[in-house]
Amino acid sequence: MSLSQDELKRMVGYKAVDDYITSGMKVGLGTGSTAAYAVERVGQKIASGELTDIICVPTSLRTKEQAESLGIPLCTLNEQSALDVSIDGADDVDTDLCLVKGGGGALLREKMVEIVSTKFICIVDESKLSKGLGPAFPLPVEITPFCHEHTRRIIESLPSLAGCKATLRMGNVANNKNDGPEIAVTDNGNYIVDLFFESPMKDAKQAALELKNTVGVVEHGIFQDMAHCVIVAGSDGVRVAGKDGEKPWW
Amino acid sequence: MSLSQDELKRMVGYKAVDDYITSGMKVGLGTGSTAAYAVERVGQKIASGELTDIICVPTSLRTKEQAESLGIPLCTLNEQSALDVSIDGADDVDTDLCLVKGGGGALLREKMVEIVSTKFICIVDESKLSKGLGPAFPLPVEITPFCHEHTRRIIESLPSLAGCKATLRMGNVANNKNDGPEIAVTDNGNYIVDLFFESPMKDAKQAALELKNTVGVVEHGIFQDMAHCVIVAGSDGVRVAGKDGEKPWW
Repeated sequence: MSLSQDELKRMVGYKAVDDYITSGMKVGLGTGSTAAYAVERVGQKIASGELTDIICVPTSLRTKEQAESLGIPLCTLNEQSALDVSIDGADDVDTDLCLVKGGGGALLREKMVEIVSTKFICIVDESKLSKGLGPAFPLPVEITPFCHEHTRRIIESLPSLAGCKATLRMGNVANNKNDGPEIAVTDNGNYIVDLFFESPMKDAKQAALELKNTVGVVEHGIFQDMAHCVIVAGSDGVRVAGKDGEKPWW
Repeated sequence: MSLSQDELKRMVGYKAVDDYITSGMKVGLGTGSTAAYAVERVGQKIASGELTDIICVPTSLRTKEQAESLGIPLCTLNEQSALDVSIDGADDVDTDLCLVKGGGGALLREKMVEIVSTKFICIVDESKLSKGLGPAFPLPVEITPFCHEHTRRIIESLPSLAGCKATLRMGNVANNKNDGPEIAVTDNGNYIVDLFFESPMKDAKQAALELKNTVGVVEHGIFQDMAHCVIVAGSDGVRVAGKDGEKPWW
Protein backbone atom coordinates (compact mmCIF):
# COMPACT_ATOMS: atom_id res chain seq x y z
CA MET A 1 0.00 0.00 0.00
CA SER A 2 1.55 3.27 -1.01
CA LEU A 3 1.13 6.39 1.07
CA SER A 4 -0.36 9.61 -0.27
CA GLN A 5 1.81 12.72 -0.52
CA ASP A 6 -0.05 14.18 2.46
CA GLU A 7 0.72 11.10 4.53
CA LEU A 8 4.40 11.40 3.58
CA LYS A 9 4.40 15.04 4.64
CA ARG A 10 2.83 14.15 7.97
CA MET A 11 5.46 11.46 8.59
CA VAL A 12 8.40 13.85 8.27
CA GLY A 13 6.64 16.71 10.05
CA TYR A 14 5.94 14.51 13.07
CA LYS A 15 9.37 12.84 13.04
CA ALA A 16 11.21 16.19 13.04
CA VAL A 17 9.32 17.31 16.14
CA ASP A 18 9.68 13.94 17.87
CA ASP A 19 13.44 13.74 17.19
CA TYR A 20 14.53 17.33 17.68
CA ILE A 21 12.17 19.27 19.94
CA THR A 22 12.43 18.86 23.71
CA SER A 23 10.96 20.86 26.56
CA GLY A 24 12.50 24.27 27.21
CA MET A 25 13.45 24.92 23.61
CA LYS A 26 13.06 27.99 21.46
CA VAL A 27 11.68 26.81 18.11
CA GLY A 28 11.21 28.30 14.65
CA LEU A 29 8.07 27.18 12.84
CA GLY A 30 8.17 27.00 9.04
CA THR A 31 5.56 27.74 6.42
CA GLY A 32 3.83 25.48 3.90
CA SER A 33 1.94 22.21 3.71
CA THR A 34 4.75 20.05 5.15
CA ALA A 35 5.74 22.46 7.91
CA ALA A 36 2.07 22.65 8.91
CA TYR A 37 2.31 19.03 10.11
CA ALA A 38 5.25 19.91 12.33
CA VAL A 39 3.23 22.78 13.80
CA GLU A 40 0.32 20.40 14.32
CA ARG A 41 2.62 17.97 16.17
CA VAL A 42 4.03 20.70 18.43
CA GLY A 43 0.45 21.67 19.27
CA GLN A 44 -0.46 18.07 20.10
CA LYS A 45 2.54 17.60 22.38
CA ILE A 46 1.94 20.86 24.21
CA ALA A 47 -1.73 19.92 24.71
CA SER A 48 -0.78 16.49 26.05
CA GLY A 49 1.78 17.99 28.42
CA GLU A 50 4.65 16.12 26.75
CA LEU A 51 6.33 19.39 25.76
CA THR A 52 6.55 22.21 28.29
CA ASP A 53 8.26 25.59 28.45
CA ILE A 54 8.35 25.89 24.66
CA ILE A 55 8.35 29.24 22.87
CA CYS A 56 8.00 29.42 19.09
CA VAL A 57 8.69 31.97 16.36
CA PRO A 58 6.42 31.62 13.31
CA THR A 59 7.79 32.41 9.85
CA SER A 60 4.57 33.75 8.33
CA LEU A 61 1.19 35.16 9.19
CA ARG A 62 -0.38 31.84 8.14
CA THR A 63 1.83 29.82 10.47
CA LYS A 64 1.16 32.31 13.26
CA GLU A 65 -2.58 31.81 12.87
CA GLN A 66 -2.27 28.00 12.83
CA ALA A 67 -0.03 28.03 15.92
CA GLU A 68 -2.33 30.41 17.79
CA SER A 69 -5.31 28.17 17.07
CA LEU A 70 -3.38 25.28 18.64
CA GLY A 71 -2.40 27.23 21.75
CA ILE A 72 1.33 27.29 20.98
CA PRO A 73 3.15 30.09 22.88
CA LEU A 74 4.63 32.52 20.36
CA CYS A 75 7.07 35.38 20.26
CA THR A 76 9.13 37.10 17.58
CA LEU A 77 12.83 37.40 16.88
CA ASN A 78 12.68 40.78 18.58
CA GLU A 79 12.28 38.90 21.88
CA GLN A 80 14.42 35.84 20.99
CA SER A 81 17.30 36.45 18.58
CA ALA A 82 18.72 32.91 18.91
CA LEU A 83 16.71 29.69 18.50
CA ASP A 84 17.51 26.05 19.23
CA VAL A 85 15.75 24.37 16.32
CA SER A 86 13.73 25.40 13.28
CA ILE A 87 11.68 22.98 11.19
CA ASP A 88 10.59 23.85 7.68
CA GLY A 89 9.95 22.34 4.26
CA ALA A 90 11.71 23.10 0.98
CA ASP A 91 10.71 23.18 -2.66
CA ASP A 92 13.89 21.70 -4.11
CA VAL A 93 16.88 19.96 -2.45
CA ASP A 94 20.16 19.20 -4.22
CA THR A 95 22.91 16.76 -3.27
CA ASP A 96 24.88 19.50 -1.42
CA LEU A 97 21.75 20.05 0.72
CA CYS A 98 21.35 23.45 -0.89
CA LEU A 99 17.66 24.24 -0.82
CA VAL A 100 15.27 26.33 -2.85
CA LYS A 101 12.51 27.76 -0.69
CA GLY A 102 9.93 30.48 -0.98
CA GLY A 103 7.30 29.01 -3.26
CA GLY A 104 4.95 30.19 -0.55
CA GLY A 105 6.38 33.72 -0.62
CA ALA A 106 7.67 33.65 2.99
CA LEU A 107 11.34 33.24 2.13
CA LEU A 108 12.63 36.36 3.92
CA ARG A 109 11.02 35.53 7.24
CA GLU A 110 11.94 31.86 6.88
CA LYS A 111 15.59 32.68 6.24
CA MET A 112 15.70 35.23 9.06
CA VAL A 113 14.43 32.63 11.52
CA GLU A 114 16.35 29.62 10.24
CA ILE A 115 19.72 31.35 10.00
CA VAL A 116 19.68 32.09 13.75
CA SER A 117 18.72 28.50 14.68
CA THR A 118 21.39 26.16 16.03
CA LYS A 119 19.80 23.36 14.00
CA PHE A 120 17.62 23.89 10.97
CA ILE A 121 15.78 20.66 10.16
CA CYS A 122 14.46 20.46 6.61
CA ILE A 123 11.51 18.12 5.96
CA VAL A 124 10.43 16.99 2.49
CA ASP A 125 8.83 14.18 0.58
CA GLU A 126 11.07 12.54 -2.01
CA SER A 127 9.47 14.46 -4.89
CA LYS A 128 11.57 17.48 -3.77
CA LEU A 129 14.96 15.80 -4.29
CA SER A 130 16.94 16.77 -7.38
CA LYS A 131 20.45 16.50 -8.77
CA GLY A 132 20.71 20.23 -9.39
CA LEU A 133 18.59 23.24 -8.44
CA GLY A 134 16.54 25.03 -11.05
CA PRO A 135 14.44 22.95 -13.42
CA ALA A 136 12.29 21.26 -10.77
CA PHE A 137 11.11 24.41 -9.06
CA PRO A 138 11.40 28.09 -9.96
CA LEU A 139 13.71 30.09 -7.71
CA PRO A 140 11.88 32.94 -5.96
CA VAL A 141 13.61 36.27 -5.37
CA GLU A 142 12.08 38.98 -3.19
CA ILE A 143 12.69 42.46 -4.61
CA THR A 144 11.72 46.02 -3.74
CA PRO A 145 8.71 47.31 -5.70
CA PHE A 146 10.60 50.40 -6.89
CA CYS A 147 11.62 49.88 -10.54
CA HIS A 148 10.90 46.17 -10.31
CA GLU A 149 11.00 45.73 -14.07
CA HIS A 150 14.56 47.10 -14.09
CA THR A 151 15.58 44.83 -11.22
CA ARG A 152 13.99 41.86 -13.01
CA ARG A 153 16.13 42.58 -16.08
CA ILE A 154 19.30 42.98 -13.99
CA ILE A 155 18.64 39.61 -12.31
CA GLU A 156 18.13 37.88 -15.65
CA SER A 157 21.49 39.24 -16.78
CA LEU A 158 23.53 37.92 -13.81
CA PRO A 159 26.30 35.60 -15.09
CA SER A 160 25.49 32.71 -12.73
CA LEU A 161 21.84 32.76 -13.79
CA ALA A 162 22.49 32.70 -17.54
CA GLY A 163 19.52 31.27 -19.38
CA CYS A 164 16.97 31.79 -16.65
CA LYS A 165 13.66 33.47 -17.36
CA ALA A 166 12.55 35.86 -14.62
CA THR A 167 8.81 36.41 -14.17
CA LEU A 168 7.05 38.77 -11.76
CA ARG A 169 4.71 36.75 -9.55
CA MET A 170 1.05 37.69 -9.97
CA GLY A 171 -2.03 36.73 -7.95
CA ASN A 172 -1.79 35.11 -4.54
CA VAL A 173 1.74 35.43 -3.13
CA ALA A 174 1.39 31.99 -1.52
CA ASN A 175 1.67 30.16 -4.82
CA ASN A 176 3.51 30.67 -8.06
CA LYS A 177 0.66 29.91 -10.42
CA ASN A 178 0.49 33.54 -11.63
CA ASP A 179 -3.27 33.22 -11.36
CA GLY A 180 -4.39 36.77 -10.69
CA PRO A 181 -4.46 40.19 -12.33
CA GLU A 182 -2.59 41.95 -9.49
CA ILE A 183 1.11 41.80 -8.61
CA ALA A 184 1.63 39.47 -5.64
CA VAL A 185 2.85 41.29 -2.50
CA THR A 186 4.81 39.61 0.29
CA ASP A 187 4.20 40.03 4.03
CA ASN A 188 6.96 42.66 3.87
CA GLY A 189 5.34 44.71 1.12
CA ASN A 190 7.77 43.53 -1.56
CA TYR A 191 7.37 41.71 -4.88
CA ILE A 192 8.54 38.22 -5.92
CA VAL A 193 10.31 37.38 -9.16
CA ASP A 194 10.32 33.65 -9.99
CA LEU A 195 13.33 32.40 -11.96
CA PHE A 196 12.63 29.52 -14.36
CA PHE A 197 15.49 27.30 -15.55
CA GLU A 198 15.62 24.66 -18.28
CA SER A 199 18.89 23.16 -17.05
CA PRO A 200 20.29 23.10 -13.49
CA MET A 201 22.22 26.07 -12.13
CA LYS A 202 25.92 25.30 -12.43
CA ASP A 203 26.84 26.95 -9.13
CA ALA A 204 23.97 27.65 -6.79
CA LYS A 205 26.22 29.21 -4.13
CA GLN A 206 27.62 31.71 -6.64
CA ALA A 207 24.06 32.45 -7.78
CA ALA A 208 23.13 33.13 -4.14
CA LEU A 209 26.03 35.58 -3.84
CA GLU A 210 25.27 37.44 -7.07
CA LEU A 211 21.58 37.70 -6.24
CA LYS A 212 22.09 39.04 -2.73
CA ASN A 213 24.63 41.56 -4.06
CA THR A 214 22.13 42.97 -6.54
CA VAL A 215 20.71 46.37 -5.59
CA GLY A 216 16.94 45.99 -5.22
CA VAL A 217 17.10 42.32 -4.17
CA VAL A 218 15.91 41.96 -0.60
CA GLU A 219 16.42 38.19 -0.31
CA HIS A 220 16.42 35.07 -2.47
CA GLY A 221 15.20 31.51 -2.08
CA ILE A 222 18.57 29.71 -2.10
CA PHE A 223 19.33 28.40 1.41
CA GLN A 224 22.95 27.25 1.22
CA ASP A 225 25.00 25.83 4.12
CA MET A 226 21.99 26.09 6.40
CA ALA A 227 20.30 22.67 6.75
CA HIS A 228 21.56 20.55 9.65
CA CYS A 229 19.85 17.60 7.98
CA VAL A 230 17.05 16.81 5.55
CA ILE A 231 14.39 14.30 6.62
CA VAL A 232 12.95 12.65 3.50
CA ALA A 233 9.76 10.62 3.28
CA GLY A 234 9.47 8.23 0.34
CA SER A 235 7.84 5.03 -0.75
CA ASP A 236 10.60 3.12 1.07
CA GLY A 237 10.04 4.92 4.36
CA VAL A 238 11.91 7.78 6.00
CA ARG A 239 15.61 8.48 5.45
CA VAL A 240 17.80 11.28 6.77
CA ALA A 241 20.54 13.05 4.79
CA GLY A 242 23.22 15.30 6.26
CA LYS A 243 24.40 15.53 9.86
CA ASP A 244 22.70 12.77 11.90
CA GLY A 245 22.15 10.84 8.63
CA GLU A 246 23.51 9.46 5.36
CA LYS A 247 25.29 11.12 2.49
CA PRO A 248 22.74 12.31 -0.09
CA TRP A 249 21.80 9.21 -2.11
CA TRP A 250 19.77 10.69 -4.96
CA MET B 1 36.45 86.53 0.89
CA SER B 2 35.40 83.05 1.84
CA LEU B 3 32.45 81.35 0.23
CA SER B 4 29.50 80.01 2.18
CA GLN B 5 28.86 76.27 2.25
CA ASP B 6 25.88 76.82 -0.06
CA GLU B 7 28.10 78.63 -2.54
CA LEU B 8 30.61 75.76 -2.43
CA LYS B 9 27.78 73.27 -3.10
CA ARG B 10 26.60 75.32 -6.05
CA MET B 11 30.13 75.43 -7.50
CA VAL B 12 30.49 71.63 -7.63
CA GLY B 13 26.89 71.01 -8.68
CA TYR B 14 27.27 73.35 -11.64
CA LYS B 15 30.74 72.10 -12.55
CA ALA B 16 29.63 68.45 -12.66
CA VAL B 17 26.87 69.30 -15.13
CA ASP B 18 29.08 71.58 -17.20
CA ASP B 19 31.91 69.03 -17.42
CA TYR B 20 30.02 65.76 -17.80
CA ILE B 21 26.54 66.29 -19.28
CA THR B 22 26.14 66.74 -23.00
CA SER B 23 23.09 66.64 -25.26
CA GLY B 24 21.59 63.22 -25.90
CA MET B 25 22.60 61.75 -22.56
CA LYS B 26 20.65 59.67 -20.07
CA VAL B 27 21.33 61.15 -16.64
CA GLY B 28 20.77 60.10 -13.05
CA LEU B 29 19.86 62.93 -10.67
CA GLY B 30 20.89 62.60 -7.03
CA THR B 31 19.23 63.68 -3.83
CA GLY B 32 20.24 66.26 -1.22
CA SER B 33 21.31 69.84 -0.91
CA THR B 34 24.40 69.55 -3.15
CA ALA B 35 22.73 67.40 -5.83
CA ALA B 36 19.89 69.94 -5.95
CA TYR B 37 22.32 72.44 -7.49
CA ALA B 38 23.18 69.96 -10.25
CA VAL B 39 19.47 69.50 -10.93
CA GLU B 40 19.06 73.30 -11.00
CA ARG B 41 21.90 73.55 -13.56
CA VAL B 42 20.42 70.85 -15.81
CA GLY B 43 17.12 72.76 -15.72
CA GLN B 44 18.85 76.05 -16.66
CA LYS B 45 20.67 74.48 -19.60
CA ILE B 46 17.57 72.75 -20.93
CA ALA B 47 15.63 76.04 -20.65
CA SER B 48 18.36 77.92 -22.51
CA GLY B 49 18.50 75.30 -25.24
CA GLU B 50 22.13 74.46 -24.45
CA LEU B 51 21.20 70.86 -23.57
CA THR B 52 18.79 68.96 -25.79
CA ASP B 53 17.53 65.39 -25.99
CA ILE B 54 18.23 64.76 -22.32
CA ILE B 55 16.30 62.23 -20.26
CA CYS B 56 16.80 61.98 -16.51
CA VAL B 57 16.10 59.45 -13.75
CA PRO B 58 15.51 61.00 -10.31
CA THR B 59 16.67 59.14 -7.19
CA SER B 60 13.90 60.31 -4.87
CA LEU B 61 10.43 61.79 -4.79
CA ARG B 62 11.96 65.11 -3.72
CA THR B 63 14.33 65.23 -6.69
CA LYS B 64 11.50 64.20 -9.00
CA GLU B 65 9.43 67.15 -7.82
CA GLN B 66 12.31 69.61 -8.23
CA ALA B 67 13.09 68.31 -11.72
CA GLU B 68 9.45 68.43 -12.79
CA SER B 69 9.17 72.03 -11.62
CA LEU B 70 12.16 72.87 -13.86
CA GLY B 71 10.72 71.11 -16.92
CA ILE B 72 13.39 68.36 -17.02
CA PRO B 73 12.19 65.29 -19.00
CA LEU B 74 12.06 62.29 -16.66
CA CYS B 75 11.71 58.54 -16.84
CA THR B 76 12.52 55.63 -14.53
CA LEU B 77 14.97 52.75 -14.67
CA ASN B 78 12.09 50.63 -15.95
CA GLU B 79 12.39 52.55 -19.25
CA GLN B 80 16.18 53.12 -19.17
CA SER B 81 18.25 50.46 -17.41
CA ALA B 82 21.59 51.97 -18.43
CA LEU B 83 22.61 55.60 -17.88
CA ASP B 84 25.53 57.68 -19.12
CA VAL B 85 26.19 59.83 -16.06
CA SER B 86 24.82 60.24 -12.56
CA ILE B 87 25.61 63.19 -10.30
CA ASP B 88 25.09 63.02 -6.57
CA GLY B 89 26.48 64.19 -3.27
CA ALA B 90 27.88 62.11 -0.39
CA ASP B 91 27.99 62.41 3.37
CA ASP B 92 31.52 61.08 3.90
CA VAL B 93 34.36 60.36 1.42
CA ASP B 94 37.53 58.43 2.32
CA THR B 95 40.87 58.31 0.54
CA ASP B 96 39.85 55.18 -1.44
CA LEU B 97 36.87 57.19 -2.74
CA CYS B 98 34.57 54.91 -0.77
CA LEU B 99 31.50 56.95 0.10
CA VAL B 100 28.90 56.96 2.81
CA LYS B 101 25.55 58.11 1.48
CA GLY B 102 21.95 57.97 2.60
CA GLY B 103 21.75 60.64 5.27
CA GLY B 104 18.69 61.72 3.33
CA GLY B 105 17.20 58.22 3.40
CA ALA B 106 17.30 57.69 -0.39
CA LEU B 107 20.26 55.29 -0.45
CA LEU B 108 18.52 52.37 -2.17
CA ARG B 109 17.26 54.42 -5.10
CA GLU B 110 20.53 56.32 -5.31
CA LYS B 111 22.57 53.14 -5.44
CA MET B 112 20.20 51.51 -7.95
CA VAL B 113 20.61 54.48 -10.30
CA GLU B 114 24.31 55.14 -9.78
CA ILE B 115 25.43 51.53 -10.16
CA VAL B 116 24.02 51.38 -13.71
CA SER B 117 25.67 54.67 -14.73
CA THR B 118 28.80 54.58 -16.89
CA LYS B 119 30.16 57.48 -14.84
CA PHE B 120 29.02 58.35 -11.36
CA ILE B 121 30.24 61.84 -10.45
CA CYS B 122 30.30 62.58 -6.75
CA ILE B 123 30.11 66.23 -5.66
CA VAL B 124 30.98 67.47 -2.18
CA ASP B 125 32.32 70.38 -0.25
CA GLU B 126 35.56 69.73 1.60
CA SER B 127 33.79 69.23 4.95
CA LYS B 128 32.84 65.73 3.67
CA LEU B 129 36.41 64.48 3.26
CA SER B 130 37.78 62.11 5.89
CA LYS B 131 40.67 59.71 6.40
CA GLY B 132 38.37 56.83 7.31
CA LEU B 133 34.61 56.29 7.16
CA GLY B 134 32.56 56.21 10.31
CA PRO B 135 33.13 58.91 12.90
CA ALA B 136 32.28 61.87 10.67
CA PHE B 137 28.85 60.64 9.60
CA PRO B 138 26.65 57.73 10.77
CA LEU B 139 26.32 54.93 8.23
CA PRO B 140 22.67 54.37 7.26
CA VAL B 141 21.38 50.86 6.59
CA GLU B 142 17.94 50.22 5.10
CA ILE B 143 16.23 47.21 6.68
CA THR B 144 12.87 45.47 6.40
CA PRO B 145 10.40 46.48 9.12
CA PHE B 146 9.77 42.84 10.13
CA CYS B 147 11.67 42.15 13.38
CA HIS B 148 13.74 45.29 12.96
CA GLU B 149 14.98 45.17 16.56
CA HIS B 150 16.43 41.71 15.87
CA THR B 151 18.04 42.88 12.65
CA ARG B 152 19.47 45.91 14.46
CA ARG B 153 21.12 43.60 17.02
CA ILE B 154 22.48 41.30 14.31
CA ILE B 155 24.02 44.30 12.50
CA GLU B 156 25.68 45.56 15.70
CA SER B 157 27.25 42.13 16.13
CA LEU B 158 28.87 41.92 12.66
CA PRO B 159 32.65 41.51 13.04
CA SER B 160 33.58 44.32 10.66
CA LEU B 161 31.33 46.75 12.53
CA ALA B 162 32.68 46.00 16.00
CA GLY B 163 32.10 48.90 18.34
CA CYS B 164 29.39 50.59 16.32
CA LYS B 165 26.14 51.67 17.93
CA ALA B 166 23.08 51.01 15.75
CA THR B 167 20.07 53.28 16.23
CA LEU B 168 16.69 53.09 14.55
CA ARG B 169 16.01 56.37 12.74
CA MET B 170 12.98 58.24 14.07
CA GLY B 171 11.12 61.23 12.72
CA ASN B 172 11.62 62.56 9.20
CA VAL B 173 13.46 60.01 7.07
CA ALA B 174 15.25 62.83 5.25
CA ASN B 175 17.48 63.59 8.20
CA ASN B 176 19.13 61.62 10.96
CA LYS B 177 18.28 63.93 13.84
CA ASN B 178 15.89 61.37 15.42
CA ASP B 179 13.53 64.28 15.95
CA GLY B 180 10.13 62.62 15.94
CA PRO B 181 8.06 60.10 17.86
CA GLU B 182 7.42 57.83 14.84
CA ILE B 183 9.83 55.42 13.15
CA ALA B 184 11.13 56.98 9.91
CA VAL B 185 9.94 55.14 6.78
CA THR B 186 11.81 55.22 3.46
CA ASP B 187 10.25 55.72 0.03
CA ASN B 188 10.29 51.91 -0.19
CA GLY B 189 8.39 51.33 3.04
CA ASN B 190 11.49 50.20 4.95
CA TYR B 191 13.26 51.46 8.09
CA ILE B 192 16.72 52.98 8.49
CA VAL B 193 19.26 52.03 11.14
CA ASP B 194 22.08 54.58 11.58
CA LEU B 195 25.43 53.17 12.67
CA PHE B 196 27.53 55.47 14.86
CA PHE B 197 31.29 54.93 15.15
CA GLU B 198 33.85 56.42 17.52
CA SER B 199 36.82 55.31 15.42
CA PRO B 200 37.00 54.71 11.64
CA MET B 201 35.90 51.37 10.17
CA LYS B 202 39.04 49.29 9.56
CA ASP B 203 37.71 47.80 6.32
CA ALA B 204 34.74 49.55 4.77
CA LYS B 205 34.55 47.11 1.84
CA GLN B 206 34.33 44.13 4.20
CA ALA B 207 31.65 45.98 6.17
CA ALA B 208 29.71 46.50 2.93
CA LEU B 209 29.89 42.77 2.22
CA GLU B 210 28.81 41.67 5.68
CA LEU B 211 25.95 44.16 5.75
CA LYS B 212 24.56 43.19 2.37
CA ASN B 213 24.79 39.50 3.31
CA THR B 214 22.68 40.03 6.42
CA VAL B 215 19.12 38.73 6.16
CA GLY B 216 16.77 41.68 6.63
CA VAL B 217 19.22 44.24 5.23
CA VAL B 218 17.84 45.69 2.01
CA GLU B 219 20.76 48.01 1.25
CA HIS B 220 23.45 50.01 3.03
CA GLY B 221 25.04 53.41 2.59
CA ILE B 222 28.58 52.33 1.66
CA PHE B 223 29.21 53.08 -2.03
CA GLN B 224 32.48 51.32 -2.80
CA ASP B 225 34.21 51.15 -6.20
CA MET B 226 31.48 53.30 -7.71
CA ALA B 227 32.64 56.92 -8.00
CA HIS B 228 34.32 57.81 -11.31
CA CYS B 229 35.60 60.93 -9.58
CA VAL B 230 34.85 63.22 -6.67
CA ILE B 231 34.59 66.96 -7.32
CA VAL B 232 35.48 68.85 -4.15
CA ALA B 233 34.81 72.51 -3.41
CA GLY B 234 36.94 74.12 -0.75
CA SER B 235 38.35 77.41 0.36
CA ASP B 236 41.15 77.01 -2.22
CA GLY B 237 38.75 76.44 -5.11
CA VAL B 238 37.63 73.25 -6.85
CA ARG B 239 39.77 70.11 -7.05
CA VAL B 240 38.97 66.71 -8.57
CA ALA B 241 40.01 63.33 -7.09
CA GLY B 242 39.90 60.00 -8.92
CA LYS B 243 39.71 59.39 -12.65
CA ASP B 244 40.05 62.72 -14.51
CA GLY B 245 41.76 64.12 -11.39
CA GLU B 246 44.39 63.85 -8.69
CA LYS B 247 45.10 61.16 -6.13
CA PRO B 248 43.15 61.88 -2.94
CA TRP B 249 45.15 64.52 -1.09
CA TRP B 250 43.40 64.64 2.28
